[in-house]
Amino acid sequence: MLLDLLGVVYDGDTPTTGAADTIQRLRDAGLPLRFVSNTTRSPRGKIIAQLAAMGINVADEELLTPARAAVEWLRNHDRQPHLLVHPDLEAEFSGLQGGNRRAVVVGDAGEGFNYANLNRAFRELLAGADFVALAVNRTFKDADGQLSLDTGAFVTALEFASGRSPVVLGKPSPDFFLSALADLDCPAADAVMIGDDAEGDVAGALRAGLGAALLVRTGKYRPGDETRFDPAPTALVDDLAAATEWIFSRAST
Amino acid sequence: MLLDLLGVVYDGDTPTTGAADTIQRLRDAGLPLRFVSNTTRSPRGKIIAQLAAMGINVADEELLTPARAAVEWLRNHDRQPHLLVHPDLEAEFSGLQGGNRRAVVVGDAGEGFNYANLNRAFRELLAGADFVALAVNRTFKDADGQLSLDTGAFVTALEFASGRSPVVLGKPSPDFFLSALADLDCPAADAVMIGDDAEGDVAGALRAGLGAALLVRTGKYRPGDETRFDPAPTALVDDLAAATEWIFSRAST
Repeated sequence: MLLDLLGVVYDGDTPTTGAADTIQRLRDAGLPLRFVSNTTRSPRGKIIAQLAAMGINVADEELLTPARAAVEWLRNHDRQPHLLVHPDLEAEFSGLQGGNRRAVVVGDAGEGFNYANLNRAFRELLAGADFVALAVNRTFKDADGQLSLDTGAFVTALEFASGRSPVVLGKPSPDFFLSALADLDCPAADAVMIGDDAEGDVAGALRAGLGAALLVRTGKYRPGDETRFDPAPTALVDDLAAATEWIFSRAST
Repeated sequence: MLLDLLGVVYDGDTPTTGAADTIQRLRDAGLPLRFVSNTTRSPRGKIIAQLAAMGINVADEELLTPARAAVEWLRNHDRQPHLLVHPDLEAEFSGLQGGNRRAVVVGDAGEGFNYANLNRAFRELLAGADFVALAVNRTFKDADGQLSLDTGAFVTALEFASGRSPVVLGKPSPDFFLSALADLDCPAADAVMIGDDAEGDVAGALRAGLGAALLVRTGKYRPGDETRFDPAPTALVDDLAAATEWIFSRAST
């Protein structure tokens, strides 16, 4: 079972209703869990500490982030990163030796998405650097409860101006979903994804071959999202608890 | 004859080689001229003063800018603007009464393209404001001689996140080219466009039905641009002087 974090397990700084109990129930039932987050603003340690403070214990190997996937990609391709990411995330990219060739890595830079930084990244792309996107999400539900511009908008801006297409390392990249299952010995067809993003979480997981993907009405969900993207969610449910009910009811039939 | 400004008549702060003499030669030959610029960073008065300082006299009615087209659009549609434009351009939008409905107007905001401003514009779009783009250029040749991100990149970012498509009031909108010819009593088929942007100037003008569009090798031109967009330029020439030669040689045959 793969769970998105923001909008599914927590919303802003608080867990969604019943999230901690539901996750405990899943663990008690012996279901292997992986948390797949496109939140590229926080470092891994902070995410795990934040979850612990909400009463949800997640082991390091259970958490998949695009930053971790990107570090692996940079190592495998022998590239030095040009980072356009949140300052808090920069430390995760330290210690990369890298060759002479560079790769522009774009994450949720937040206020770092200003003209000067975007233009520097654009010029790196024109000069031949590779182009790595940690996510291509259009929007996220901000702390004030409203939707805000997410990484995908800025990745698209760079793509439009440079004529270059990014390698996407977070959701909805099929590789990202499959890497989350890699050490579970679980065929994709037996896995279920739960998310609040009908495009990145749900359609992405189904395209990667997962057996089911449930869309929750929490987080950034807006009425009509369930018909907005292809493939459509296997089911639309209220929240994480309802998603878990859906899974248990299926498992028992 | 329609002439782009930046990259054709001047480059940075200096006129292109022979630009002032060439324009005088066109005037002496009695060719009606219109200057169609997507430079949405400078107010009209500043553009005209800048040209005068280079020895090029341009009358107010000879200069077409997307800002002027936008003011007309806002008046006709009874909209109040939410501006994401360069501070120097804001005065051109003053005095609009407008109704209760709003329109997000995006021009080359330069350093104003920061996260907070872009997110405010995005939220206006989500709330139902109309979406007006003064230009959709991908890049421009910056003061340091390198390409930089232009308005189109940020328009595309807002479009991607909001799912809304803009009304484009500058080049390559056919209406913009045709409005430049409107008071000249010149059929589009008899008009020639000269520009350094193979997409916005050249393909745009040909799509609007202009008889010819010449691509110059000055400004932002990069080798291969002449085959990059459809329709392709009528001819590729060195600069404004060469474009003028091309026109005179055609006129005399």
